[in-house]
Amino acid sequence: MHSMESFFPFLHRLADVAAEAILPRFRAAIAVDNKLEAGFDPVTEADRGAERAMRDLIRKTYPEHGIIGEEYGAEGEDRSHVWILDPVDGTRAFICGLPLWGCLTGLLIDGKPAAGMMSQPYVGERFFGSAETGSFLAHGGETGPIKVRACAALDHAHISTTDPNIFTAAERPAFERLSARARLTRYGYDCYAYAMVAMGGMDCVVESGLKPYDIAALIPIIEGAGGAVTGWDGGPAAGGGRILALGDKRLTPEVEALLAT
Amino acid sequence: MHSMESFFPFLHRLADVAAEAILPRFRAAIAVDNKLEAGFDPVTEADRGAERAMRDLIRKTYPEHGIIGEEYGAEGEDRSHVWILDPVDGTRAFICGLPLWGCLTGLLIDGKPAAGMMSQPYVGERFFGSAETGSFLAHGGETGPIKVRACAALDHAHISTTDPNIFTAAERPAFERLSARARLTRYGYDCYAYAMVAMGGMDCVVESGLKPYDIAALIPIIEGAGGAVTGWDGGPAAGGGRILALGDKRLTPEVEALLAT
Repeated sequence: MHSMESFFPFLHRLADVAAEAILPRFRAAIAVDNKLEAGFDPVTEADRGAERAMRDLIRKTYPEHGIIGEEYGAEGEDRSHVWILDPVDGTRAFICGLPLWGCLTGLLIDGKPAAGMMSQPYVGERFFGSAETGSFLAHGGETGPIKVRACAALDHAHISTTDPNIFTAAERPAFERLSARARLTRYGYDCYAYAMVAMGGMDCVVESGLKPYDIAALIPIIEGAGGAVTGWDGGPAAGGGRILALGDKRLTPEVEALLAT
Repeated sequence: MHSMESFFPFLHRLADVAAEAILPRFRAAIAVDNKLEAGFDPVTEADRGAERAMRDLIRKTYPEHGIIGEEYGAEGEDRSHVWILDPVDGTRAFICGLPLWGCLTGLLIDGKPAAGMMSQPYVGERFFGSAETGSFLAHGGETGPIKVRACAALDHAHISTTDPNIFTAAERPAFERLSARARLTRYGYDCYAYAMVAMGGMDCVVESGLKPYDIAALIPIIEGAGGAVTGWDGGPAAGGGRILALGDKRLTPEVEALLAT
């Protein structure tokens, strides 16, 4: 049994190879494919190149582990250790040139998110951690611990969702009830909103329709910083869907009551 | 008569002294005052310290110039050359810990925005330019020209506004008409959205209720990159209010028609 800390150097290596594939394409003229026939879901060569590089590194280093990735699907997902990858979370920010996308790499052990990293190579910062070790921010050659901040009531809370239009007609009023009570609401941050919860800049993120690879890497980072990630109903979050991330768990009853439709 | 290029080194010096005052306070526990009795308008010591440092540098270097700043008001604003300063544009992003605020410094000559810079010291990038010289991005020790991108029709456009709730009840449907036609809508970027127009990542920014110091520095950067910044009605933008920034001027008729309420 490894301690979670022993996986951190490998999370950094994954972020390194992903950055090599992604950065040359950031803000360059990029081919944007449409993954979905209806709607708009850009997939770039950056995504694909980074996932291929990360998969190669995992197969070479941990041939006994499984992999789930946004671009190339699952292999060995029934194994005890499974890496879950989203090379460019926030592809819309990416194609607009905004440095608020992130490369997400998580390790599931027996189906539970055990360690994770969010890397933003243009800004040069990496948020990573686990419930066991605590969470950290590496930036400019220095690494320090990060913590959620105290926020006992929603009227002091900074809340966020990526896009008010991600919600279904039934879900949107739930977010609007929350937003009406919160001190400040921000949009457009994808994985950065979760990193800010872990770092104590935001208090609550509410989203829906997430895939497992959108959230699995972020759960250990927030848990290690003292917060919690669940479904809107308090259930497990690792499967995606309706996600609620809180820095201060004292917000749970107030927020869950407002989200219950 | 100076050429605009001769002011670029001074724009960099302003950004340097501002960054010295702001960066130590970014993501630190910061005192957030409320400038407005109603509503929420955080002003931080970062804002004030940076504006004091920039004002000192301007008075020492160009004692014959005027200054307009967000925090400390106007002095000599009737002079031919007036510097217009917003030390931390995007204070909400700033207090949430997100590196998408910017330090805005512009030079008005005879009331018209002639040169400007948007600096993001945590990310380490500076967008600057003028209609006369073209526009540039400095990042990681390198400086290169930036250009708007071609976008002839709104259904290919990336559009942005900082917050769907900045609009009045009369204005909001105008933005929603635009958003319904656009390829992609993003929120939450403040001055970064304008920088992305100049760099060719976004095509259109629509906002209202802006102050002159929110927009004056950004106008020359977009103009120098080949775009245009006007009021919603096509009039001048330097006074703030309802602002429309376009990368490709061919969008003007389509966008202005949709915005007309």
